[in-house]
Amino acid sequence: MSSADKAVRRAKFEDAWNVIRDELVDNFKSHGMPQDAIDWYSRNLDYNVPGGKLNRGMSVVDTVEILKGRPLSDEEYLKAAVLGWGVELLQAFFLVSDDLMDSSVTRRGQPCWYRVEKPAKVGTIAVNDSFMLEAALYYLLKKHFKQDSCYVDLLELFLEITHLTEMGQLIDLITAPEDEVDLNRFSLKKHSLIVIYKTAFYSFYLPVALAMRMCGVPDSYTDASTGTELKPYEVANSILIPLGEYFQIQDDYLDFSGTPAQIGKVGTDIVDNKCSWVINTALALATPEQRRILEQNYAVKPNEEEKAKARQLAEGNHGEEQGYLGEAEKRVKAVFEEIGIREKYLELEETRYKQLTGMINAIPEGPRGQEGILRREVFTSFLNKIYRRQK
Amino acid sequence: MSSADKAVRRAKFEDAWNVIRDELVDNFKSHGMPQDAIDWYSRNLDYNVPGGKLNRGMSVVDTVEILKGRPLSDEEYLKAAVLGWGVELLQAFFLVSDDLMDSSVTRRGQPCWYRVEKPAKVGTIAVNDSFMLEAALYYLLKKHFKQDSCYVDLLELFLEITHLTEMGQLIDLITAPEDEVDLNRFSLKKHSLIVIYKTAFYSFYLPVALAMRMCGVPDSYTDASTGTELKPYEVANSILIPLGEYFQIQDDYLDFSGTPAQIGKVGTDIVDNKCSWVINTALALATPEQRRILEQNYAVKPNEEEKAKARQLAEGNHGEEQGYLGEAEKRVKAVFEEIGIREKYLELEETRYKQLTGMINAIPEGPRGQEGILRREVFTSFLNKIYRRQK
Repeated sequence: MSSADKAVRRAKFEDAWNVIRDELVDNFKSHGMPQDAIDWYSRNLDYNVPGGKLNRGMSVVDTVEILKGRPLSDEEYLKAAVLGWGVELLQAFFLVSDDLMDSSVTRRGQPCWYRVEKPAKVGTIAVNDSFMLEAALYYLLKKHFKQDSCYVDLLELFLEITHLTEMGQLIDLITAPEDEVDLNRFSLKKHSLIVIYKTAFYSFYLPVALAMRMCGVPDSYTDASTGTELKPYEVANSILIPLGEYFQIQDDYLDFSGTPAQIGKVGTDIVDNKCSWVINTALALATPEQRRILEQNYAVKPNEEEKAKARQLAEGNHGEEQGYLGEAEKRVKAVFEEIGIREKYLELEETRYKQLTGMINAIPEGPRGQEGILRREVFTSFLNKIYRRQK
Repeated sequence: MSSADKAVRRAKFEDAWNVIRDELVDNFKSHGMPQDAIDWYSRNLDYNVPGGKLNRGMSVVDTVEILKGRPLSDEEYLKAAVLGWGVELLQAFFLVSDDLMDSSVTRRGQPCWYRVEKPAKVGTIAVNDSFMLEAALYYLLKKHFKQDSCYVDLLELFLEITHLTEMGQLIDLITAPEDEVDLNRFSLKKHSLIVIYKTAFYSFYLPVALAMRMCGVPDSYTDASTGTELKPYEVANSILIPLGEYFQIQDDYLDFSGTPAQIGKVGTDIVDNKCSWVINTALALATPEQRRILEQNYAVKPNEEEKAKARQLAEGNHGEEQGYLGEAEKRVKAVFEEIGIREKYLELEETRYKQLTGMINAIPEGPRGQEGILRREVFTSFLNKIYRRQK
């Protein structure tokens, strides 16, 4: 897809947001809420929901188009977009609360919502604001899907995936608390569990499964040409979960290797004691001496002098974060480089790509235009979007 | 009901919690979660869900019994208890997060969850823990009601009432931020809106509506003896919302008048700048001089000297909060007494009781034993539980 096509596709999806946001605000108004609350709720929606890469949301629309094998009518597009923005609302719910729990500074190149001071101080009200982002999606689901046979399946998908994501968030939070460093708790196995539950289910399986439900893909069917019975939701899961794991490994890697200009935020995984793919891979490969350096320096906060320098640097740059590194973080990064994390990552990227391509090509598929069945393109389009991504 | 009967009823409801909690923990385990996460989740459930008055949860069971007009089978009891504990889980979700947002100290006579330090520090992880309490209820709903015709109605009830409660929480939080006192934002009308949305829907309408759905009460029916058409959910709403408002007014009043020994917590509404019935009634009745005192002293935090005294007092009492008052809070309370809040409250209590009794007696009701219709006793049992309560 050309970058002009991508921009058009994004603009169309963002137009649907304007419709959806107005529905949400109108509903809020209809309860007789005071004007300051209406303004607050609108700001919450517009500050936290659009503005990301929108890959998750748009992938619902893309998948519906692939499964139907034709362009969507306006009515179909809006319904697919409601599911897509539902995923974005769910993600906003997670991110707003995660940022507060992680004491994060910036998100998508702007201050995290809980740190906003104007026109009013948000602070811990962000917790309730995150709840309202979650609740908004169920309002939309009822409004647009109540009459459809897939309504309960859609409700259950959102509810169950939310639950799984929260399980992943819990193990992440207690494995890597910000102020209690213990690298013995970490392992590549623990990392995999965290990543699958915290990210892969909602980012990869959820958008595809929603699209499949909207298109009436049943729980099982027999492939016409080969006569094999297929459980399409299980197949989708078996591909999208390792794909999501790969995506999060990229995220972890970019937090280490990416610049603020490139990824729109300052990488804080090392200072924040994150159980990331990078530290876990380093631990698995480290010599005793390298492990000692990691243990002494991982998650060590910058000292007062270093903080002052970072502030000075930021002020000279219109307040934008520049990712100034303290000495401890520099030492950790040096070990990562010594161990050859960059090469390890490139190897993993190629291996995963081949594995996933193999699994995708094993899906039997009927003739183009047949509705209610799975198609390989659902997965290849996903894989192509993230393979070798730089941000 | 005798106090022995009440204890038996409570014990039976608490037994159901053991079954339900084990189902939740088993489900969590089945996902291959690590042992430290299983322990954390179990503690979250047992610290935050039981231990309250359980009025909301038990009222679901009571209402089912009243509507069926007979004792429940074991299977029916468990299903009603699942809905009841669902309401308690929802309430725990709200309370755990509210306490963090409000910087509350104690809840139900123990430290608020986010303040727990042992065996591990909870802190802002309480936010995700609150999410998991919410998610737990939808797991239970699916497990116990998936096959029932009322399943979607139950899902929608929980989801919609959650949304309304969060709206109420938002207007409460922005009307009365802890650190920005402006009594001009307050009014009895604003108080009423906050109370209805933040408390009445989930505490009063939700338990009854859930029981009605479980008993198959339809959206409308014609009363056999009078021939009048009834919309039972609208009737329930029209009684339970003012009843819930009355309940919250009691809560506000008890925060002012109750002792820690009586209400199980230190009243903090004055110091926390709460938009309570007490301050709003006082503002409506205050002379200009009294209003000036309220404006100068409402929500003024104790100074360092007063805080030290409060700590000293608490240490001498095994760390238990004693509700030590700073000078500003004493001045506010003195104005409340001058204005005669106690008498105003007693008047309101009697007026509400009479109004509600009138509304309840206007409900046409068929012969005892007829299923699927509304009964007056649903409402009188509620009213009798809260009328003139002291805690």
